Amino acid sequence: MKNSLKLFCLSLLAMPVTALAQSETFPAGTVPNEHNINGAEYPRIGADRRVHFKVHAPDAKKVEISFRGEMTKGDDGYWTLVSEQPEVVGFHYYQIIVDGVAAADPNGKPFFGMGKWVSGIEIPEGADGDYYAVKDVPHGTVAKSRYFSKIRDEWRECMVYIPAEYDKNPAKKYPVLYLQHGMGENETSWANQGKMNLIMDNLIAEGKAVPMIVVMDNGNIEVFKPKQGESMADAQKRFGHEFPSILVNEIIPHIESSFRVKTDRENRAMAGLSWGGLLTFNTTLNNLDKFSHIGAFSGAGSIDVDNIDGAYGGVFKDRDAFNGKVHAFFLGIGSEEHPERTRKLSEGLAKAGINNTYYESPGTAHEFLTWRRCLKEFVPLLFKGDRQ
Amino acid sequence: MKNSLKLFCLSLLAMPVTALAQSETFPAGTVPNEHNINGAEYPRIGADRRVHFKVHAPDAKKVEISFRGEMTKGDDGYWTLVSEQPEVVGFHYYQIIVDGVAAADPNGKPFFGMGKWVSGIEIPEGADGDYYAVKDVPHGTVAKSRYFSKIRDEWRECMVYIPAEYDKNPAKKYPVLYLQHGMGENETSWANQGKMNLIMDNLIAEGKAVPMIVVMDNGNIEVFKPKQGESMADAQKRFGHEFPSILVNEIIPHIESSFRVKTDRENRAMAGLSWGGLLTFNTTLNNLDKFSHIGAFSGAGSIDVDNIDGAYGGVFKDRDAFNGKVHAFFLGIGSEEHPERTRKLSEGLAKAGINNTYYESPGTAHEFLTWRRCLKEFVPLLFKGDRQ
Repeated sequence: MKNSLKLFCLSLLAMPVTALAQSETFPAGTVPNEHNINGAEYPRIGADRRVHFKVHAPDAKKVEISFRGEMTKGDDGYWTLVSEQPEVVGFHYYQIIVDGVAAADPNGKPFFGMGKWVSGIEIPEGADGDYYAVKDVPHGTVAKSRYFSKIRDEWRECMVYIPAEYDKNPAKKYPVLYLQHGMGENETSWANQGKMNLIMDNLIAEGKAVPMIVVMDNGNIEVFKPKQGESMADAQKRFGHEFPSILVNEIIPHIESSFRVKTDRENRAMAGLSWGGLLTFNTTLNNLDKFSHIGAFSGAGSIDVDNIDGAYGGVFKDRDAFNGKVHAFFLGIGSEEHPERTRKLSEGLAKAGINNTYYESPGTAHEFLTWRRCLKEFVPLLFKGDRQ
Repeated sequence: MKNSLKLFCLSLLAMPVTALAQSETFPAGTVPNEHNINGAEYPRIGADRRVHFKVHAPDAKKVEISFRGEMTKGDDGYWTLVSEQPEVVGFHYYQIIVDGVAAADPNGKPFFGMGKWVSGIEIPEGADGDYYAVKDVPHGTVAKSRYFSKIRDEWRECMVYIPAEYDKNPAKKYPVLYLQHGMGENETSWANQGKMNLIMDNLIAEGKAVPMIVVMDNGNIEVFKPKQGESMADAQKRFGHEFPSILVNEIIPHIESSFRVKTDRENRAMAGLSWGGLLTFNTTLNNLDKFSHIGAFSGAGSIDVDNIDGAYGGVFKDRDAFNGKVHAFFLGIGSEEHPERTRKLSEGLAKAGINNTYYESPGTAHEFLTWRRCLKEFVPLLFKGDRQ
């Protein structure tokens, strides 16, 4: 035992101090943020939805929490900040900024958003968040899958949600939803920030969604680096069409050769949030022979309601043909992110005879709770031909 | 297009400044660290294996790189540091410390080590690192799988490597290796820092290893928080036996009910690094009815060579019985981490008639390159009964 203890002690040097911290008292009614690691006590979420931040930085001149402001230094070297207002329920990003340098909170799980790995707080929704709670239901897996892109000349990785029943039905093939993140996020964001796997697990367990594979890839493409002499707007336009090409020509074949999936258009859907919504339209509306269900979450900006017939090569011109092919055309948005344009688009499309579903998430803005809710509303519309 | 451009520009606010940086010149012979994200140029690795760090922190009083020392501030607000000596090849942790606050590098991919999410640099091995290079071979997936632990009364997640051929052989069942990280790391560390999936892909593609499932879980268990009045040493002893119980009673049943795996002892192996090596011995040597292959990578500290017969309830006493049951008993260690004791243990075991394999990684210490190499040496010894 002596020798193994030596090994323990050596390794202990690398352990976080927080784990050894003395017991302390905390503001009444607060609990640790669910994304804290190693039993870290801060940030804490109050019953009043205010977040309590506390950072040990005795030698810093100024410490801030991004989006929230400057912290106040105490005599003990700890800096504190409490949200001025109750925060909106759901998931929000933050970074700790020490003397001007912003970084993820070392006490937290990292999330890829804002173009880098940052931290997140979760303001519980209570019963309204039941649809993404971890429940005693069969849980699918989220797998990282590697493929080579000739278009990009690089190895890439996508995340694949595989429903719990997959291995129990080795002869069965599954429909596929391609699901894209927003700008500054990546292929990990839907599962990490979006809790998409829990939403899927719960919907499938309740019989509200058919078991399906969900594929998430990185649609940022080189973070929109313009080529020499190219404007950012032109670079974005280029990338808005490069990813659809990768998806159709490389990701779909990779998924269909690696997993047991159905390969006809009736069993292929795509949705995306924000920038991912644009990628969804650019992919699906130019390839209706390949997709039958379409969702844009806070991302329906690329269709002009005053020129529906001119959009995407005239894909809407033949109403009956469009309605016959597209079994779900879903437009979702948060009530606090100026939903008027998306609502007007939905109404304009309906008036013109294009079937679509409009969903407005109450009380939420351009944030992940809007998109979790959109996913929950959208997925039950998919692959109804598969229902028994 | 106008509206979608507005959406782009709004989202752009969240993009990293690095992506828009002007072109600059770099120290001759240096290339970006492979774990940098979004095209970040620093840290850079020199052909001489020195690492060049550069951090923008005009308002900081002091900026350090952990394990390496203080940076020097330039007039432009950038702090720089170059490794004093060429660094050892392989993977090394680092953090950026701004006025006393240590955090992961916002320009890097996060790795769970040192008890938190930190950053990593990779010093290329050249041809010697070929076994963990991304090659044009079939690639397995690494999946996150959720299960409920009654012992811990909590939902837990393990990572599962699934070989590329798995979905192409829906009737085939696979042997399983349980593979544990070291103290301060977690279930993600073997794939992220250890590149275990690439090592497995390459070994399987070359026919050096049989296709197998590899399961990685979190063996830290509450980061060794002692109970009220309990010493850290006692807490560690307790945790050293709690995880084996979770593995045998909960993880194995979860894996066997969720994946197509073989369930007999001949097709079950376990290995671990450092603290994970102790967990491996505590699990396997107390449960030889369940495991047939055993590996300890820099973690064979719990067997006293002078009292082999007294170890683990006398499991070694009957040499023939042990040799008959354990088809691989692997002890690996780095040449630069005082390998004498492990070497002596291997020799002592052999002298006493216990078959074992000793492997010493040349030039490496208590670090992931030692363990990548150990995995490469260990895995070909497994499940030889499965070979054709």
